Amino acid sequence: MAVTYARGFRAGTAACGIKAFTTGASAIPGDQRDDLCVIHSASPCDTGGVFTTNKVKSASVVIDQLHLQRNRVQALTINSGNANACTGAQGFRDALLMAKLSADRLDLDPDQVLVSSTGVIGRYLPMDAIKSGITEACSQLSPDAGAAAARAIMTTDTQPKTAQTELEIAGTTVRIGGMSKGSGMIHPNMATLLAYVTTDAAVEPGLIARLVRSVADRSFNQVTIDGDSSTNDSFLILANGAAGNEPIRAGTSQAEQLQAGLVQVARELSRAIARDGEGATKLITVKVLTAASDKDARTAARAVASSSLVKTAVHGGDPNWGRIVCALGYSGAELALDTLHLTVGGLVVFERGAGVDVDLSGVRRAFEQPEIEIVARLGLGDGAAEAWGCDLSEEYVRINADYTT
Amino acid sequence: MAVTYARGFRAGTAACGIKAFTTGASAIPGDQRDDLCVIHSASPCDTGGVFTTNKVKSASVVIDQLHLQRNRVQALTINSGNANACTGAQGFRDALLMAKLSADRLDLDPDQVLVSSTGVIGRYLPMDAIKSGITEACSQLSPDAGAAAARAIMTTDTQPKTAQTELEIAGTTVRIGGMSKGSGMIHPNMATLLAYVTTDAAVEPGLIARLVRSVADRSFNQVTIDGDSSTNDSFLILANGAAGNEPIRAGTSQAEQLQAGLVQVARELSRAIARDGEGATKLITVKVLTAASDKDARTAARAVASSSLVKTAVHGGDPNWGRIVCALGYSGAELALDTLHLTVGGLVVFERGAGVDVDLSGVRRAFEQPEIEIVARLGLGDGAAEAWGCDLSEEYVRINADYTT
Repeated sequence: MAVTYARGFRAGTAACGIKAFTTGASAIPGDQRDDLCVIHSASPCDTGGVFTTNKVKSASVVIDQLHLQRNRVQALTINSGNANACTGAQGFRDALLMAKLSADRLDLDPDQVLVSSTGVIGRYLPMDAIKSGITEACSQLSPDAGAAAARAIMTTDTQPKTAQTELEIAGTTVRIGGMSKGSGMIHPNMATLLAYVTTDAAVEPGLIARLVRSVADRSFNQVTIDGDSSTNDSFLILANGAAGNEPIRAGTSQAEQLQAGLVQVARELSRAIARDGEGATKLITVKVLTAASDKDARTAARAVASSSLVKTAVHGGDPNWGRIVCALGYSGAELALDTLHLTVGGLVVFERGAGVDVDLSGVRRAFEQPEIEIVARLGLGDGAAEAWGCDLSEEYVRINADYTT
Repeated sequence: MAVTYARGFRAGTAACGIKAFTTGASAIPGDQRDDLCVIHSASPCDTGGVFTTNKVKSASVVIDQLHLQRNRVQALTINSGNANACTGAQGFRDALLMAKLSADRLDLDPDQVLVSSTGVIGRYLPMDAIKSGITEACSQLSPDAGAAAARAIMTTDTQPKTAQTELEIAGTTVRIGGMSKGSGMIHPNMATLLAYVTTDAAVEPGLIARLVRSVADRSFNQVTIDGDSSTNDSFLILANGAAGNEPIRAGTSQAEQLQAGLVQVARELSRAIARDGEGATKLITVKVLTAASDKDARTAARAVASSSLVKTAVHGGDPNWGRIVCALGYSGAELALDTLHLTVGGLVVFERGAGVDVDLSGVRRAFEQPEIEIVARLGLGDGAAEAWGCDLSEEYVRINADYTT
């Protein structure tokens, strides 16, 4: 299941007490949840990654970018509880040591291991605990530990996030699975997003690196706000070829099929992140259609999904469509009110330059559903995109949600 | 006081029940607070304005941009409760009618009146109520009604916001006063910011239009998030010359003095907005010094002040300086950890590329003060700027504030 759904991938986990060691708190007995996992592939993978654009990068991100250059990755070691960011030279040594300790246990070279960290910034990794954790995790690698790995990477997440799918590519069954962490907050500028998608598809070397960004643009980048990224955000795709298909080449229909499968899994993980928003009770899906370009559509959809005031209106069941129009307006996407057509939960609320005199109680009912779909047709081209968010609750809502009513 | 502190300016207010008429709610007897005001100058003013960059603009903003072209403004009419945005052709007619009704009562031409609206989007202005309100407000213009005018423009604000100062320019006393509304929310993408600064300084025609943007960049633009602006944001400066000084010309030391006074008043109004954040208990001042440029400093300061996670850390008294470094990192400003020097409440928490082993309880005490100053020295040039924000409370905080502790 999950990150071990594709053939040839195994996972192992360990409880190291990393957060307790990091913050100096004493670990609570019995509260030792898994906080480290190792993912291992039976053979080297074609691998691609997208990382944070923050100028301050975790040592783990820098090391991964280095290790990806040789493109023969065969394992991942991930810890939660400590981000290993803003930790200077010691941080780099620790990230390299994480890779080396894992490589030693798995009979690999250090540059065949990628490392990720998530948690508190500015504290050194508790390397003794991590060393024992790596030993333990590597000693119990199993194809059944995908779900446990998804739990081990959680920080403020309330739910583990996994997804998988199966495709038929040129007569061969190809599996894709994945896990992610991160919670869709009000303003997710530091909720580190970590996501790992594995597939047993065989591909020509370099294909995954070519696909990974467009997969991210259609999935994880649509649950965060443009330009805001943590020191540690990482999204990796690994393809180990265990399915035994003819290696997929770029530009072919098989490559398109594979990409669609990767996007499907990545989107499911993205929606899980949005749904797990802190205090969230509803998933908001924003579709922007007939935009001037796909890029415009992505920008506009993200602006609506991340608008605090749209979120509070949704939470309060307040049919304040003006907030949606406003978010479209400041998104930066091309926009003309004359051609804008807006629906909320299937009800038309805005068209031909003005609000529609709709039954407001119908809109309110739509906003009260656990999943709300907002569709904006911009009428300017054939760009399309989706973004996902969650509602906002409590104090902030008490002030905003009832604003029109 | 306030917007009537400078000589020659008078204000009048009226309670029109605009929000009740707009939303169809029945007005609560006794709850009829002022929601319209008129500001009148004894003579035409040199006027400059900065408006929302949202592609969807309130009709009032479009009309004001038109009226400013002739630069002989002598009155402002402002309503709260209804934004007159997304209201199509009817919205433009209504905004023009607001100007004309005011002009008729004040014996001016319509293009001598600027209009502002703030409140619910997508509903037509209740023009009958507004007409009576304009009549009433114009009938009781007084230099004593500045404070009442500041209350009349409030929406979710809990406090009216006013400021004033007096300068000696080339031997003449010049007064500057102002008022603003808007509350420094979590993500103020739709908390309309309205601000009006009046002065009795005499200036050469066009000077105010040349100064207004740099005043905004040093004040109101530092309490909002870049690129996010409501349909109605407006900042206007009016100079009527009643002080009788020799008209101030651009590029002179007198112009610099005047600009400094305008910035001072605008900053005080900006800080009041930040302090009045929804649910806020603390004012956060972020100073960025020795940045590569002033622009970089502004960007970086704003990123820190608007980071939800910095805000929650401050609220929770959590000395999580990593969140500050992270916000600097994604701000887009040039940054080098090696030269970064960071203080919180006067205590050094980061320097020479790593966190300082400071007494964390001292930092925590600093975060517990009602006003917190964060100073980041980037060590890259001589750019400097300030930004202001407030802390974040409740549900969101319960999850984030205790993250490191």
